[in-house]
Amino acid sequence: MLTISQRGIAMPASPIRKLVPFAEAAKKKGLTVYHLNIGQPDIETPPAIMDAVRNVQMPVLEYSHSAGNESYRRKLTTYYKKLGIEVDYDEIMITTGGSEAIRFAFLTCLDEGDEVLIPEPLYANYLGFACEAGVRVVAVPSSIEDGFALPPTDVFARYITDKTKAILICNPNNPTGYLYSREEIEAIGKICKERHLYLLGDEAYREFCYGDTDHTSVLHIAGLEEHAILLDTISKRYSACGARIGALVTKNKKVLESALKFAQARLSPPGLAQILGEAAIDLPADYFDTIKEEYLQRRNLLVSRLNSMEGVFCPNPGGAFYAMARLPIDDCDKFCQWLLEAFSYHNQTLMLAPGTGFYATPGLGKNEVRLAYVINQTAISNAMDCLETALKVYPGRTI
Amino acid sequence: MLTISQRGIAMPASPIRKLVPFAEAAKKKGLTVYHLNIGQPDIETPPAIMDAVRNVQMPVLEYSHSAGNESYRRKLTTYYKKLGIEVDYDEIMITTGGSEAIRFAFLTCLDEGDEVLIPEPLYANYLGFACEAGVRVVAVPSSIEDGFALPPTDVFARYITDKTKAILICNPNNPTGYLYSREEIEAIGKICKERHLYLLGDEAYREFCYGDTDHTSVLHIAGLEEHAILLDTISKRYSACGARIGALVTKNKKVLESALKFAQARLSPPGLAQILGEAAIDLPADYFDTIKEEYLQRRNLLVSRLNSMEGVFCPNPGGAFYAMARLPIDDCDKFCQWLLEAFSYHNQTLMLAPGTGFYATPGLGKNEVRLAYVINQTAISNAMDCLETALKVYPGRTI
Repeated sequence: MLTISQRGIAMPASPIRKLVPFAEAAKKKGLTVYHLNIGQPDIETPPAIMDAVRNVQMPVLEYSHSAGNESYRRKLTTYYKKLGIEVDYDEIMITTGGSEAIRFAFLTCLDEGDEVLIPEPLYANYLGFACEAGVRVVAVPSSIEDGFALPPTDVFARYITDKTKAILICNPNNPTGYLYSREEIEAIGKICKERHLYLLGDEAYREFCYGDTDHTSVLHIAGLEEHAILLDTISKRYSACGARIGALVTKNKKVLESALKFAQARLSPPGLAQILGEAAIDLPADYFDTIKEEYLQRRNLLVSRLNSMEGVFCPNPGGAFYAMARLPIDDCDKFCQWLLEAFSYHNQTLMLAPGTGFYATPGLGKNEVRLAYVINQTAISNAMDCLETALKVYPGRTI
Repeated sequence: MLTISQRGIAMPASPIRKLVPFAEAAKKKGLTVYHLNIGQPDIETPPAIMDAVRNVQMPVLEYSHSAGNESYRRKLTTYYKKLGIEVDYDEIMITTGGSEAIRFAFLTCLDEGDEVLIPEPLYANYLGFACEAGVRVVAVPSSIEDGFALPPTDVFARYITDKTKAILICNPNNPTGYLYSREEIEAIGKICKERHLYLLGDEAYREFCYGDTDHTSVLHIAGLEEHAILLDTISKRYSACGARIGALVTKNKKVLESALKFAQARLSPPGLAQILGEAAIDLPADYFDTIKEEYLQRRNLLVSRLNSMEGVFCPNPGGAFYAMARLPIDDCDKFCQWLLEAFSYHNQTLMLAPGTGFYATPGLGKNEVRLAYVINQTAISNAMDCLETALKVYPGRTI
């Protein structure tokens, strides 16, 4: 009999996409559905970078270098330099989205059966890439009461075994929006040095930090050069999720050498999108200011509305464009489906991402949801009206 | 100590790229280097499909569906229909190049330690993807004397074990250019049915067939619907290697379901390049005629020149734009390096791909080279002058 591989069966389905049919059915009924469920920003892709693609002169759309166009990599060094990250162009490998950077890091640093520690809740697709690579994700619980801060280092250390090869930190965090302080990144770096672990830094949202705290990159920490691998992407930075351009950046030559072999097998990253990525380096210095201000207003609105609802708790996230909230509900998967299937308020409803999808530990996150503030403030306000009403009538409410 | 994974170490480096520094040095010395080493066509990317990208109107470059844009997949059904392949749009998954289609097929059909049979010589990157997925490539030898035809089915059957899950056929073949007949594809299909194996068909070069024999797809064979997985790409078809757009096409719903989970983890295939791919379906029906004629002339020139050289044998390839030739030399790796390092003829030399890089079995292919006829006829003619001269003076010549 023809069989599907064990990993193909074990591979997790997207926790967000399983609600899509219910959202489609709600829209067919004529409802407005506010999408707070997915990290697809509504911000315009900068016209200047789309123009760079429109003006492309290239008689043959050839393979690029497997590590990406040298001109792009050289320009990226100036982008990183402004952030206080000193790297040479050959320490940068252009990848097909941040996704591929994560994949190459897993393949290079871990073998089948090896373990990577990740604070939980976590970006769901880490579990997919781990399954693909036969790697075990060991989730280190962080708590909503602490606003999802880094677990104390002694707690972290307790999870390290002979199989542990790396710690992965998403900063600012998806799904929690938590912005790790320099002290926290240094503390985790110290563990990595002591225990000979790689520190993988997923910094997809670094431009979106809202407080006085500056963003700390894994590449900012002195003495951690051999351990730190930056996993980057232009998806959120320039609202160019569909481009599929990311980067793996490290000073560790052996990691680069191994990652390049994986990169050579797939020949090259997308060519047209590299042009777009390269053009983005020339965006004016104030490009992020307006966008950050907009996200900040949205966050403030969303978080204050949530915390004003009875029984709801939402820590104030310091970055990214996500918030995790605890709701007075029995089961977030049921609740999110019910919102789409059985609820409406003035002919509107909302779509949320169930918290369970972001926990590797079964049973956790059952009364949590992730909200992405990627819709405008009027829409957020309307969505919060819906949520407030829904929580008063949901059959599985716990207060 | 920080360690690189075993698979990162085992991952093969590109056999072609290791000669690149020698080619660069030759050029620095002022030599003209004819590149017959790599499958990067010199054919212009059709301006009409580049224009489709130039004219893109898309305020936000969003994630596409993980299986690719529905409009593109619907249009692709018309492309396949013209080839006699009847598929629904939801039996097509757009991938990041043909590379990702191969990767998804390996991950879905095989587990760590499982085996895939592939006629040898073979496309070198299969070995990379297999290493990445922990899959074992079992090479079934084909012979230059038979023009690299499919090994007899009883020979094939001898290589099947309990671990064998799939047979992979590249048709027309890279690196040999061999075009499998309908009888051969049916014979291999019969083994797959009897032994419950997947038949993976890499058909990247299907448009480039030069004889009276029509191309036979794995999806042409009746009764093989559950077994056949077509691995496709626009790279060679439309000279758009840098776009990174391919497809995995199958009627097997379970395979599609599993592959979709791997696709969801990486979110979506490249967005700009999907526009280019979709536009390509509207190219005039005679688009391939001129290009095919050009490749045919080049093949005829290349093969006749090769076979007129003393001690050289090159079977006449029926498709793709590659030929494998046996040369009167001691060691193709040494010879190819020597051509770049120590030889010149009228200030010119040529770059070839050593045959050894296309064999999984150590020691095979030592007196073979692959030649890609992706340069114009004048250049081919000059390159053949160089080769002919080189073979007379190469210190390791065997006649």
